[in-house]
Amino acid sequence: MTPPVPYYAVIFTSLRTDEDAAGYADMADRMVALAARQPGFLGVESAREGMGITVRYWRDLASIKAWKANAEHLLAQQAGRSDWYARYKTRIAKVERDYGFDKPA
Amino acid sequence: MTPPVPYYAVIFTSLRTDEDAAGYADMADRMVALAARQPGFLGVESAREGMGITVRYWRDLASIKAWKANAEHLLAQQAGRSDWYARYKTRIAKVERDYGFDKPA
Repeated sequence: MTPPVPYYAVIFTSLRTDEDAAGYADMADRMVALAARQPGFLGVESAREGMGITVRYWRDLASIKAWKANAEHLLAQQAGRSDWYARYKTRIAKVERDYGFDKPA
Repeated sequence: MTPPVPYYAVIFTSLRTDEDAAGYADMADRMVALAARQPGFLGVESAREGMGITVRYWRDLASIKAWKANAEHLLAQQAGRSDWYARYKTRIAKVERDYGFDKPA
């Protein structure tokens, strides 16, 4: 899914409020689709189990900066702070090494 | 939870097999406790929703290397490949920037 290193990972961890589950789900779907169309987007992995963890992969810092400043994304960030998130943390990290495993069939 | 940047994130994403749920849960608990005692360990965040995502934070590359070579952890890695995981990917990334939000009470 991701190219040879180096590339970037943006690790977003969050705790939801109880508010507006439908509005949140709607926004989350829109942001997934919108991010996937941004230049430099490489992929996303996401799971929620109490805490939510979303890791988006990007080609470089310029792509991350452009996505952060995207107009529709800015509105979602604002609604996130006013309604949907009790807290979150964003970490921007340069992937220096990766390796994996696929079980032989 | 984490100190000022820079520090390291190890992003471990995985897909489980259907095998040995009890043995896996047992190992997972042991590895959480064991990792937390390693020098340079800063914290962990984890969620599973189909795919599992575990992000461990470390002070530096030397701490990560020592944890990877830990004897009990090596046995767990081996059992992971033979039994528990259909696939996984490990990414070692240097956190260059972070910021967060806490909803005012």
